[in-house]
Amino acid sequence: MGLELYLDLLSQPCRSIYIFARSNNIPFEFKHVELFKDSVLGKKPAAGSGAEQPRAGPSNSEGAGKVSLLKKVPALKDGDFTLAECTAILLYLSRKYNTPDHWYPSDIQKRAQVDEYLSWHHANIRANAPKTMWIKVLIPLFTGQPLPSEKLQEVMEGLSTSLKQFEERFLQDKAFIIGSEISLADLVAIVELMQASFCVPQTDTPDQRRFPSFLVLLYELIFIFSLYLYLQPVGVGCDIFEDRPRLKEWRRRVEDAVGKELFFQAHEMILNIKELSNIQIDPQLKEHLAPVLMKMLK
Amino acid sequence: MGLELYLDLLSQPCRSIYIFARSNNIPFEFKHVELFKDSVLGKKPAAGSGAEQPRAGPSNSEGAGKVSLLKKVPALKDGDFTLAECTAILLYLSRKYNTPDHWYPSDIQKRAQVDEYLSWHHANIRANAPKTMWIKVLIPLFTGQPLPSEKLQEVMEGLSTSLKQFEERFLQDKAFIIGSEISLADLVAIVELMQASFCVPQTDTPDQRRFPSFLVLLYELIFIFSLYLYLQPVGVGCDIFEDRPRLKEWRRRVEDAVGKELFFQAHEMILNIKELSNIQIDPQLKEHLAPVLMKMLK
Repeated sequence: MGLELYLDLLSQPCRSIYIFARSNNIPFEFKHVELFKDSVLGKKPAAGSGAEQPRAGPSNSEGAGKVSLLKKVPALKDGDFTLAECTAILLYLSRKYNTPDHWYPSDIQKRAQVDEYLSWHHANIRANAPKTMWIKVLIPLFTGQPLPSEKLQEVMEGLSTSLKQFEERFLQDKAFIIGSEISLADLVAIVELMQASFCVPQTDTPDQRRFPSFLVLLYELIFIFSLYLYLQPVGVGCDIFEDRPRLKEWRRRVEDAVGKELFFQAHEMILNIKELSNIQIDPQLKEHLAPVLMKMLK
Repeated sequence: MGLELYLDLLSQPCRSIYIFARSNNIPFEFKHVELFKDSVLGKKPAAGSGAEQPRAGPSNSEGAGKVSLLKKVPALKDGDFTLAECTAILLYLSRKYNTPDHWYPSDIQKRAQVDEYLSWHHANIRANAPKTMWIKVLIPLFTGQPLPSEKLQEVMEGLSTSLKQFEERFLQDKAFIIGSEISLADLVAIVELMQASFCVPQTDTPDQRRFPSFLVLLYELIFIFSLYLYLQPVGVGCDIFEDRPRLKEWRRRVEDAVGKELFFQAHEMILNIKELSNIQIDPQLKEHLAPVLMKMLK
């Protein structure tokens, strides 16, 4: 039994593993997991087909539960050995398949710099970037509430601080995080920032916030409006690459390093509006999760 | 110029590096940094002396700022090479000083298990354990507000969920996280859990919460009372090892593996009430940070 990777390309850590495995020609069986099935996003169609592509047909959510000790994606199964956590899987693949040195350099200092970024990433980029997707897209969809501008601003400020550190302390004037060649650090960073760059305009106004009862009456209307906004690809002032030329240039270099075709194929789900518009939300699920999501807005 | 480690043993990541370096007889110069100087805890006396001990005299806070790209502890300086982030420093030391294999096994699967824990740790134990110290000790000290039982309960529930996963999915029935020998994973986990095990009793009651104006009048009295509570070593129902025999046994094994003397020396600052009682809080700092800390209580 060969290598199996349990992934959902809606998830940023899954995309980094997918890109790494494909760009290094690592043979694996793509086990498509519907990450948010009965959890967050309801059912969505599987995209693509083929051994290393997201598979059509039934998902492997249950399989991933059995595979991953942590019952989440990404998960790896290699014979009897199972593994969770993106960083652990990337490092395992780099060692087992002896991938080119630049991904995780044998030079002790350069390797330490990759480790340094991978650790910093957790409490900074990883902690802040996904919130923007929640605040901008998912919470309005699930709660029917418009985007709260104060909360959005708070989240965007957190992300801005992290991005400033990322540019000034890690990227600096180098081509990639640890120098002239791409490493695992760049890959882990880019997939997270691509998720944050998806955005919709704000919908609430001071008037709306001042009269919450009015919001209650407009619940359904706002939900439909939110759905409409959800289908817009880019809003005003929230494309994180737009005003950051250094970050934008780095993104272009990362795309070139792994191959543009592979890069955009991996990000197809989050960049393709038609795909996103196919997401169906279970009404029961929406009702169940609304209070949880409202708590996030506090 | 030899290896320099910039540490404050009040910080849990610093303690893991200190224990690792000392237990592996790695020669280093201990650069004592006052982590919270002009930041959170105000000035506190340096403890101990000697080349590998926290040094008396002026702290190296400014030095650490220059050393660490991220301007925080722990930080490593090895000649011209500087490094931040606990995990990165531990891995660098293990490679450079060729420490015994069990710390970060050369076996590809066992190594992946250490990586898996180190990654999971960030968003779980590391994300939840330190909050207990903030909620239980620091916020009452700085804001003069009593411990909010609801918030404490919320934080303790988050920690309990992480501890349940830690026991069931990582520790299981093994002596240590990856088997019969201690690894970096155990060390990174124990220092965080030691921080969470320090606790004080709750002070608020439903009556106090119902009459906030009464609290305002009692501001100073409550502050003094909080200070008194702060000096109690263990409270009711919040020693995380108390009702978790498996966790308690694991802690004992970790203590034995690194040596009890070293373990308790590293934790002296957070376990020794006399040391803690010497912490002086700058009134200006208290005033400055109170609103920030109050935000955490929301």
